Amino acid sequence: MTTVRIEALGQHTDTVVTVQGWVSTSRSSGKLAFVVLRDGTGLLQLVISKRDVPEEVWGRIAGLTQETSLAATGTVRAEARAPGGYEMHVTDLVVIGASTEFPIQPKEHSTQFLFEHRHLWLRSRRQVAIAKVRNEVIKAIRDFFYERGFTLVDTPILTGSIGEQAGELFATDYFDLGKAYLAQTGQLYVEAAAAALGKVYCFGPTFRAEKSKTRRHLTEFWMVEPEVAFNDSAANMRLQEDFVSYIVGRTIEARKEELKELERDTTPLERVQAPFHRISYTDAVARLNTLGSDMEWGKDLGGDDETLLAQQYDRPVFVFNYPKGVKAFYMKENPDDPRTVLNNDCLAPEGYGEIIGGSQREDDYDRLLARIHEQGLDPKAYDWYLDLRRYGTFVHSGFGLGVERTVAWICGLPHIRETIAFPRQIHRLYP
Amino acid sequence: MTTVRIEALGQHTDTVVTVQGWVSTSRSSGKLAFVVLRDGTGLLQLVISKRDVPEEVWGRIAGLTQETSLAATGTVRAEARAPGGYEMHVTDLVVIGASTEFPIQPKEHSTQFLFEHRHLWLRSRRQVAIAKVRNEVIKAIRDFFYERGFTLVDTPILTGSIGEQAGELFATDYFDLGKAYLAQTGQLYVEAAAAALGKVYCFGPTFRAEKSKTRRHLTEFWMVEPEVAFNDSAANMRLQEDFVSYIVGRTIEARKEELKELERDTTPLERVQAPFHRISYTDAVARLNTLGSDMEWGKDLGGDDETLLAQQYDRPVFVFNYPKGVKAFYMKENPDDPRTVLNNDCLAPEGYGEIIGGSQREDDYDRLLARIHEQGLDPKAYDWYLDLRRYGTFVHSGFGLGVERTVAWICGLPHIRETIAFPRQIHRLYP
Repeated sequence: MTTVRIEALGQHTDTVVTVQGWVSTSRSSGKLAFVVLRDGTGLLQLVISKRDVPEEVWGRIAGLTQETSLAATGTVRAEARAPGGYEMHVTDLVVIGASTEFPIQPKEHSTQFLFEHRHLWLRSRRQVAIAKVRNEVIKAIRDFFYERGFTLVDTPILTGSIGEQAGELFATDYFDLGKAYLAQTGQLYVEAAAAALGKVYCFGPTFRAEKSKTRRHLTEFWMVEPEVAFNDSAANMRLQEDFVSYIVGRTIEARKEELKELERDTTPLERVQAPFHRISYTDAVARLNTLGSDMEWGKDLGGDDETLLAQQYDRPVFVFNYPKGVKAFYMKENPDDPRTVLNNDCLAPEGYGEIIGGSQREDDYDRLLARIHEQGLDPKAYDWYLDLRRYGTFVHSGFGLGVERTVAWICGLPHIRETIAFPRQIHRLYP
Repeated sequence: MTTVRIEALGQHTDTVVTVQGWVSTSRSSGKLAFVVLRDGTGLLQLVISKRDVPEEVWGRIAGLTQETSLAATGTVRAEARAPGGYEMHVTDLVVIGASTEFPIQPKEHSTQFLFEHRHLWLRSRRQVAIAKVRNEVIKAIRDFFYERGFTLVDTPILTGSIGEQAGELFATDYFDLGKAYLAQTGQLYVEAAAAALGKVYCFGPTFRAEKSKTRRHLTEFWMVEPEVAFNDSAANMRLQEDFVSYIVGRTIEARKEELKELERDTTPLERVQAPFHRISYTDAVARLNTLGSDMEWGKDLGGDDETLLAQQYDRPVFVFNYPKGVKAFYMKENPDDPRTVLNNDCLAPEGYGEIIGGSQREDDYDRLLARIHEQGLDPKAYDWYLDLRRYGTFVHSGFGLGVERTVAWICGLPHIRETIAFPRQIHRLYP
């Protein structure tokens, strides 16, 4: 007997095959039973008629509780009204694994309970849809860069030198070399690689030991960070709008069914096309003040300010050239206004806020060293990074896009914790 | 003036453009200078004639030391004899960043010195070629799974429960939850995801705090781990041979130039096609004994035994069904010989040894729990993993392929440390 996955049933209509999977729902009228089976590749309605199967097979129907695994054999028929578009007229059915009182029932559970049972909760239709959207977003990211001649450079997680805030790092003992820190960013490393390969990106997990408990923070999250030699800040923003438009456009095209399952209205996503709006930080502060915010020049934009500002636009907006004081040491000083740096954030619409932070990098050796001193960082740890300015320094820029925030936005989820299979938060390390 | 990257020069022949990049080599006859420029996307020969440029431009020629960054403007001509196939007749040339005494010279350096300057060494032609092969291998991996309907599931790095040897883990403090351990594998997590999505894979960095100093070990390396519901051990090996053949075939096709730069004879790689050879562990021991090894049944295969065995074959070989005692607790007991488990390693030819370890997983709740106890592991930490056998247990299998070992094999490198941009070894955490 041919065993097939549900996704391939279209090639086996009107023939007898075996499928294996888990019971999603089942109901029986006493003579006829309907079981919706899922195998991760699709849904199939099993139709079991008491008179068509041996008595022992019919006797198994009552035990087909939620998530029971089974193998069913029968004839496949196209049936537009059935979930998945096919049904099987079953002649044999064997239980592989029982499932008594599956913890996730079709009812309301507390968030705490669901995340405690995340390994089982992943089987729900909604979580499957989110996982498939995430898969598409990530493949789109990889394809975008591959097609444009970027080279992936996997940067280290275990690092000695430190990219951003020294305070919020996870540390581990590293043999005889003291402490290693889990990377918050691969940026410094892709800068080195950009001088070798021109257009590069890293894409891996990053870590923040921050005590943030907002709907936009995880302690472990995935970030993609392209870096391009000879791109200035303006070219960097053009790359960002092409990139984000590509990801969103491809995902809403390829994952229509999943977005429908998530009840996502894709109209706002269809508007995500280059060019994005652009506003300087200074203008943004003025604009926010007219909108009632008490935001002052010199401070970083908070989440509420970002939301308020992004609401003014029908597609993502770049806010560029922030005050030097609130930004990292490696951002290039703005020659037209040295109080600011050549950076940008990209704010997603619909209240999703910052999905990208990017900048042109400081390529002047003396200015960079001065900034390292100013911020109280150890120049010795950055010696190799300074080498990039010693030997053929170059204009370059890049950015980081947070995958979980992007997936949350595209899926229309209120919290990023559902966008990754096993989220890590300050109070959650299990399962 | 249009500024273009070297890769795009073919669209600008016989026109005047500007390119930016770094000096690879330069030589001057007193009236004519030739500079080979690289920008990460290709090589371009600049031809500067003293009589065609202003005196001040000619005066810059002497300062064009290795890795000086510059912008050159001139007319692009196709020139088959030039590196990269084009040359530029320069009318203007501006130095962007000087480079005095670049540390990596075209001469022999010690391994220690090269890795200490890894951030600069990456610019060499050989390292660029390796990086591009790695990029291709990883894209091939992603495409293989995407095209076959697998869903990527990013598994956590920070974990409470532990997949393999409890001894060789990096640990970090995790807020109020005690210690978190850096994942050695995502396998347990993809098993949970396979019940949700059918065909899944994870692909991320993994960590081993082993004191191994061999040419096949790093403390941080990338591993791809597919897991498939309803695949048994035989189906698992078929997936592996299709997968490895796809990666190798595509890379030797798409990265001919880079493999040539690495002086890799690709003849042995062209033979890497399914089906691979298969030999049981028991038969392998007997075979090794006839070849002079003192290998005894019950022990794991060492590196030398792997090499000796793999040398007997013209393509990769699967060694399957190892003794239970040398393998992890989660591997399924072989019903035909309970001293063994339903697992396999895949050994690459040409002395490269193990690139894959895979197995069918124990799907029987009681047997799995007994194995957890036998190995002295804490059943409480594995409670969620046991749930997969409580609720609709299922035949499933998967494997892990090490990216660095695969890239070393395809590139023909003696040591895996050059296959990743910033390798982490027990004595190396910098740069």
